[in-house]
Amino acid sequence: MERAFVVEGVRAVDDALETGAIASMILIREGEEHLLPEQVPSRRVVAPDIFAGLTDTQHPQGILGVFPFPNVEPRRSGPDLYLLADRIGDPGNFGTLLRSAAAAGASAVVTLPETVDPYNPKVVRAGMGAHFRVPLWDYTDLATAERIHEVQVRVLADLGDHPVYDEFDWVRNVALIVTSETAGPSDLAMSLATDRVTIPMDNAIESLNAGIAGSVILFEAARQRRNQAKRP
Amino acid sequence: MERAFVVEGVRAVDDALETGAIASMILIREGEEHLLPEQVPSRRVVAPDIFAGLTDTQHPQGILGVFPFPNVEPRRSGPDLYLLADRIGDPGNFGTLLRSAAAAGASAVVTLPETVDPYNPKVVRAGMGAHFRVPLWDYTDLATAERIHEVQVRVLADLGDHPVYDEFDWVRNVALIVTSETAGPSDLAMSLATDRVTIPMDNAIESLNAGIAGSVILFEAARQRRNQAKRP
Repeated sequence: MERAFVVEGVRAVDDALETGAIASMILIREGEEHLLPEQVPSRRVVAPDIFAGLTDTQHPQGILGVFPFPNVEPRRSGPDLYLLADRIGDPGNFGTLLRSAAAAGASAVVTLPETVDPYNPKVVRAGMGAHFRVPLWDYTDLATAERIHEVQVRVLADLGDHPVYDEFDWVRNVALIVTSETAGPSDLAMSLATDRVTIPMDNAIESLNAGIAGSVILFEAARQRRNQAKRP
Repeated sequence: MERAFVVEGVRAVDDALETGAIASMILIREGEEHLLPEQVPSRRVVAPDIFAGLTDTQHPQGILGVFPFPNVEPRRSGPDLYLLADRIGDPGNFGTLLRSAAAAGASAVVTLPETVDPYNPKVVRAGMGAHFRVPLWDYTDLATAERIHEVQVRVLADLGDHPVYDEFDWVRNVALIVTSETAGPSDLAMSLATDRVTIPMDNAIESLNAGIAGSVILFEAARQRRNQAKRP
């Protein structure tokens, strides 16, 4: 059986279709047929009570798309940049990381154990279309694990007296491991890590949430890669 | 009357007390007196049903502190870095911005109109102690507005064809204006802005939420300031 997930709302469904994704089914709530042109394939109109049972949103818009798990190809320009999400249990944090990874041009996002189901509706909402824009892999797939082990530099973002993240060279094949603010890295993450970096913090702030810490480092990697590309 | 706000949970109250803040009152739920030593001043034990009425958390820990609005002094090292929060209606986004501003060493966070009440319990939770660590000002206070108008470089983070945020010089007195991802800048924010910058985004990602965009730029400012300080 093909695995599929749900995308809710007019803007999110439109955006998914614009990336070229093909919906298995698009459901419209009766009375809101204007939300999607009739010629869109796989369009079905359903009664309001049935529609309400299909969503966990409190005030859903009248449109909902069922899409096969996207199979996004990694881009082939420049060195790889993988984001490994370790113990990211909060859907909002994981969705944020996925979106930042896509925006920062990451090669793929890889879920390590104890990370939330990336196709959970709350993650999909927070990802804002990132699921269709960046490869999303699972470390428990053998091919993914092998690929990650081939990356020689795997950097854990951590608290403590480590090199500062912006003094690290991100312009090479590299995997960034972002872990839970409260739980800390898993044994797997620690065994994978070849290096550690930290984000200096002022005012006795002790930590940042994983979504922010990961985004700050991903965009630093993107910055270094842009600057490198500009050099003669 | 002194204005006050509520801080919930053992860790958050401990953390606030550690910054030197003095609670007007600390309430402990009956049966959980072990959560706080008896010698802490202003400690009151209350019945569980009364305690439940004082919090909007579903499963509150049995401790809750009432603190006067902190009056944090801006630090006096290096050029100023103000964060202006424009139309940030989501408590999680605003709390995140406040925390990142404190961690990145900002001089103060200033609320512009249509930004959520910074002492809203959801903001306080997301801020994770930042309320006690960075000055928090309101633009509708005349003294604050005057101070911001004295800052000659006021930079709006925006979408579109603007200079890239990391090519901008953040090592001078500067105010960063972060606005709503969906609503865009208010008239006030546009009238304040002397410059605009943008964060380049890959994979046809159109925008980032205000918490992420603001954090990425704040930490770029902190990075430039660290590097500047290291130069002979």
